[in-house]
Amino acid sequence: MIVPPDSVSLYDYERHFHHQVDPAIQAYIAGVGADGITCRENRAAFDRLRLMPRALADMSRAGTRSELFGEEMAYPLIVAPMAYHRLVHPEGELATVAGASLTRTWMTVSAQASVTLEEIADKADGPLWFQLYVQPRPEDTLSLVHRAEAAGYKALVLTVDAPVNGIRNMEQRAGFRLPDGVSPVNLAGMPPDTFVPARPGSPVFQGMLRTAPTWDSVRWLCARTRLPVLLKGIMNPDDVAPAIAAGAGGIIVSNHGGRTLDTLPASLDVLPLVVEKAAGRLPVLVDGGLRRGTDILKAIALGAAAVLVGRPVLHALAVGGTAGVTHMLTILQTELEVAMTLTGRPRLADIDRSVIASRPGS
Amino acid sequence: MIVPPDSVSLYDYERHFHHQVDPAIQAYIAGVGADGITCRENRAAFDRLRLMPRALADMSRAGTRSELFGEEMAYPLIVAPMAYHRLVHPEGELATVAGASLTRTWMTVSAQASVTLEEIADKADGPLWFQLYVQPRPEDTLSLVHRAEAAGYKALVLTVDAPVNGIRNMEQRAGFRLPDGVSPVNLAGMPPDTFVPARPGSPVFQGMLRTAPTWDSVRWLCARTRLPVLLKGIMNPDDVAPAIAAGAGGIIVSNHGGRTLDTLPASLDVLPLVVEKAAGRLPVLVDGGLRRGTDILKAIALGAAAVLVGRPVLHALAVGGTAGVTHMLTILQTELEVAMTLTGRPRLADIDRSVIASRPGS
Amino acid sequence: MIVPPDSVSLYDYERHFHHQVDPAIQAYIAGVGADGITCRENRAAFDRLRLMPRALADMSRAGTRSELFGEEMAYPLIVAPMAYHRLVHPEGELATVAGASLTRTWMTVSAQASVTLEEIADKADGPLWFQLYVQPRPEDTLSLVHRAEAAGYKALVLTVDAPVNGIRNMEQRAGFRLPDGVSPVNLAGMPPDTFVPARPGSPVFQGMLRTAPTWDSVRWLCARTRLPVLLKGIMNPDDVAPAIAAGAGGIIVSNHGGRTLDTLPASLDVLPLVVEKAAGRLPVLVDGGLRRGTDILKAIALGAAAVLVGRPVLHALAVGGTAGVTHMLTILQTELEVAMTLTGRPRLADIDRSVIASRPGS
Amino acid sequence: MIVPPDSVSLYDYERHFHHQVDPAIQAYIAGVGADGITCRENRAAFDRLRLMPRALADMSRAGTRSELFGEEMAYPLIVAPMAYHRLVHPEGELATVAGASLTRTWMTVSAQASVTLEEIADKADGPLWFQLYVQPRPEDTLSLVHRAEAAGYKALVLTVDAPVNGIRNMEQRAGFRLPDGVSPVNLAGMPPDTFVPARPGSPVFQGMLRTAPTWDSVRWLCARTRLPVLLKGIMNPDDVAPAIAAGAGGIIVSNHGGRTLDTLPASLDVLPLVVEKAAGRLPVLVDGGLRRGTDILKAIALGAAAVLVGRPVLHALAVGGTAGVTHMLTILQTELEVAMTLTGRPRLADIDRSVIASRPGS
Repeated sequence: MIVPPDSVSLYDYERHFHHQVDPAIQAYIAGVGADGITCRENRAAFDRLRLMPRALADMSRAGTRSELFGEEMAYPLIVAPMAYHRLVHPEGELATVAGASLTRTWMTVSAQASVTLEEIADKADGPLWFQLYVQPRPEDTLSLVHRAEAAGYKALVLTVDAPVNGIRNMEQRAGFRLPDGVSPVNLAGMPPDTFVPARPGSPVFQGMLRTAPTWDSVRWLCARTRLPVLLKGIMNPDDVAPAIAAGAGGIIVSNHGGRTLDTLPASLDVLPLVVEKAAGRLPVLVDGGLRRGTDILKAIALGAAAVLVGRPVLHALAVGGTAGVTHMLTILQTELEVAMTLTGRPRLADIDRSVIASRPGS
Repeated sequence: MIVPPDSVSLYDYERHFHHQVDPAIQAYIAGVGADGITCRENRAAFDRLRLMPRALADMSRAGTRSELFGEEMAYPLIVAPMAYHRLVHPEGELATVAGASLTRTWMTVSAQASVTLEEIADKADGPLWFQLYVQPRPEDTLSLVHRAEAAGYKALVLTVDAPVNGIRNMEQRAGFRLPDGVSPVNLAGMPPDTFVPARPGSPVFQGMLRTAPTWDSVRWLCARTRLPVLLKGIMNPDDVAPAIAAGAGGIIVSNHGGRTLDTLPASLDVLPLVVEKAAGRLPVLVDGGLRRGTDILKAIALGAAAVLVGRPVLHALAVGGTAGVTHMLTILQTELEVAMTLTGRPRLADIDRSVIASRPGS
Repeated sequence: MIVPPDSVSLYDYERHFHHQVDPAIQAYIAGVGADGITCRENRAAFDRLRLMPRALADMSRAGTRSELFGEEMAYPLIVAPMAYHRLVHPEGELATVAGASLTRTWMTVSAQASVTLEEIADKADGPLWFQLYVQPRPEDTLSLVHRAEAAGYKALVLTVDAPVNGIRNMEQRAGFRLPDGVSPVNLAGMPPDTFVPARPGSPVFQGMLRTAPTWDSVRWLCARTRLPVLLKGIMNPDDVAPAIAAGAGGIIVSNHGGRTLDTLPASLDVLPLVVEKAAGRLPVLVDGGLRRGTDILKAIALGAAAVLVGRPVLHALAVGGTAGVTHMLTILQTELEVAMTLTGRPRLADIDRSVIASRPGS
Repeated sequence: MIVPPDSVSLYDYERHFHHQVDPAIQAYIAGVGADGITCRENRAAFDRLRLMPRALADMSRAGTRSELFGEEMAYPLIVAPMAYHRLVHPEGELATVAGASLTRTWMTVSAQASVTLEEIADKADGPLWFQLYVQPRPEDTLSLVHRAEAAGYKALVLTVDAPVNGIRNMEQRAGFRLPDGVSPVNLAGMPPDTFVPARPGSPVFQGMLRTAPTWDSVRWLCARTRLPVLLKGIMNPDDVAPAIAAGAGGIIVSNHGGRTLDTLPASLDVLPLVVEKAAGRLPVLVDGGLRRGTDILKAIALGAAAVLVGRPVLHALAVGGTAGVTHMLTILQTELEVAMTLTGRPRLADIDRSVIASRPGS
């Protein structure tokens, strides 16, 4: 597993990923909803923002450190929760967490991980978060929470934007099925939490949705854990107040990487609206479309406490294992430092809205 | 006639249609006016609207039911009137209506159907509408109306945007002619109602147009039937008041799928202007460009009582007969339910303008 | 010279032209300035305007007639001045004028015609205009004017936007030269009126420009002819007042089909600004990018008295000779009548700004 | 080294350059930062500005002369500083300066020139400027300044936008290395001034940046030379006041041709903002994306005293040596004169904002 020497950006890892990985697995990971409009929009939102540089700033004491939930964070960058890392690498999440640890990057482990959450925690050298859905049976949810707490996870990430699966046509066309030996080991024995639509004769509204989570579920969960609970998948600024009322500890602005409902706005585009409503009462993070260090800087300028990076981690894991993940995260960190230098912002706190240029040409 | 297993969206049916069907027939059905600008705009109007989701809404009592002209409607979706279904399937409209009935979808039968309106009504298990043009001879128009009434049709759809044919260059280049055995059987013995332009020496303004319908024709027709008359092809908000004055029972905002005058706006774009003028006095429907469940949701958010789906029905009919139509309509219904779930709108009445996000990136 | 049967629009003639004609001659006729931005913009300006139709209007007395300089005009459409029709057809302008006459279309003969202006006038059956540049020697200019007057031309068109040639890179790359037997026969014995730039060591500002025309030249010319003088190539609204002061009888808004200075606006886009300044004191016409009947309607809606069509005439002449020109002009006339019908405007005078829809999607 | 006869614009030279030159050297010269968004935006900013022409202006006394720092300038066009001309031509900067001199074009010599600055000065017949970075060791910076002064350079250009290298992925993928025999001869014996990022384990913020230049470095330099010092790489209007305070003699608005931080705005788009802040207190120049004479005119209309042309010089040098550079610069000069003629602006001072048309179509 040799990383090709022309892997100098996240796009290069993506390119190699598409040359090396089984098409059906590619389709599952790329896996956009419907026509991929939101997925492309996530990326376009970063690309169309212009940065206003500042010349000759004093960068001699520059740094990227911040703090979240009482933990020091080396870079404002976290691995996003993604299912089944073993789809692209035999060691799965264990290989990923090793790369994250080497680069001092936090990682969010998915409830659909293909390795037990305890094994991942054993291998980690740095803060981990645990992502979950509200399970149909309350005892299953609590069991996951207690295991995560026991294994030393620092926060819970509750996904709130997927009571049903999105219209994953790309994945459906490719006929993706989980290969033998890859399974959601942490959910063993639990009934599935979502419903697969888009088959004739199977209306979404029958039955299944009666168990879908509501704000009550969030309230219930927050009352039963000592960990901060971040709600992942908030896009509507009007959902901030109920989130706070329900006890959420943080918000991750996300459209699920464009995998759920197509034609949602870019997560970056709604970020400032959500930040405004949060008004500093809880940290707001964002994911979706991140590929460059300048993207991290832009998200922070618009009020994000940190950003989550998803698919690029699987691309690098597939192409280079732990070395790939390590390299890919280092590229992002280096690009962020270059971006801070050329915009003359020595600290994260210096990255404010003035770094975003208005667009004279548009 | 086996539906390919990768047919998971309306676009897949369209793709297979283009692989399987005779090019001249394809050209007739695709059949855009002039340069196809309006046809593409119809689609783009849907794609560029962004949806603002709502997290964690209670969907336990969700449903898609509404009512129109006193009939209960399972989904706000109606098959649009299209000529000659036998162009793509030997049983023509009979195969279509079977698929519509199986999925509880209403259907509009074209006066240019290739099967008699009575046979279609016999086969149907659900409300049908009948579409017609004002015929040059009043007795022909009345004969069609009386037959539709007798056969149990629930409404008349009068097409008002085609006193002349559009500039159908695509169809002209392909040299489309009706194949043997396919004809407008319901119009047998009636002189043709429109004029074919774009031949040297045949100015449009000579003769033919003297018989073209006017607001008086609508008034005349409405006074002669007990059925509600929907006017199809209204785009100009200033045409709403005369429509109501003439006795129309409903309006279908439509640019004829981009088949008449090119560079008309998207029907979706003028929909809210027409709805505003209608001010609840009569139901406003829309057609043109629909391909996704999110499109239905967007049209309803902008005030449509229901939407009509056209070409995709012929695509599915060509590819899979009744099974294709059934499957295609089920996909749309499922996608609508997913869209309602992820935007947190349990009932059609909950789908208001707030589901449309302003576009921060534009 | 058989016109291919799939020639159903001006674009089809253009396509066949590009298959049939010598590449260097194509390059001369297509011949855009620099990067072709203005040429494409001319077309895009028409395509991006949206039309608001009107249903069910009474078209029983519809017609396209108007009047210009005291002459009745069947259609508001004039053949634009273009050099050397014999480049694409052995009979050159004589074949063109026959097609124009058959379709009751006026024609502007270029001073660089490849047939004498008298022969063209002999063949014509309808009003002709004569286009010229101010020649370096006044007596040459007057000689052309007197010949045109004597031959019965109805107006003079003075081109004012080309004191130097544009940067015709396309033509330069193709190495275009006038073939044997094709020449500006009407200018025999006169020194060339423009200067060819873009050769090393030949600065534009030396010498040649001292003879370039100014507003004084227009004043001088208008005082020496009894014909109305239209200024062709006005784009700047601030040039309207001096044009009127100098005695111009009309204005043709034009960027020379994108052949002079690249990145000029579309002529259609500045038309309403010029019309506003003209304030009805003299007729304003427009050329540049016309390909559809809807384009004529749009130009009239924005205030044009008539439109000129250029390159499509040479395309049709090359492909089909007089028959091609006749057919192509008939297509435009038919398309205009269809557009008037579907927008519900029975007379040219009914085509006002309200036919242009604002664009909700932009 | 024969210039192909179809080289009639700068784009033609670019095309031939890409056919003739080693791919790794191409990648170094094209060498955009990250995804090339800023590089394309530089060009797009020129292309989307529309010019408003003026008809029939008196151009009999037209000219392009201006003055900068007390020297008469034939054309407001200067060769931009670029490293290593010997990459594309054996005589390197000597061949370039000969072409510049022949066309009376000023030239900026890079500190990373592949020929000594004294040899270039010997060969020049016209004003030269010298570009440098602040070197890590002050004595190195002063040594370069004194050599430039002694050799008769007329101004210093201090690059202020590259304390670290940009993310040059294109160059990295191509594996560019300086070939044998090409080196920064003027910097012999000096430690490198910038830091190469994007390698794992090499955070930008460690060590290296402690020597990066600040406003103090500018102040220090301006106090130690009698030459005017232009700051190259100013984009932020807020950097104008400190530049003046530090003693700068001029500003070059630049984003380093899109080679440093990607997603910066086009330099042309921020030019008017910088000009406004400069308020006539010091001349403002611009580089980035220039390919046409109309571009020079647009930059001047927006307030530039002159423009710098970069990569096209290396394209022409590679394709045609001194003849290529001479021809390419002549094309630009000719195109500028044509643009001034067709916009009716006989002098540079006549090129004001009114030559820029608002865009009715956008």
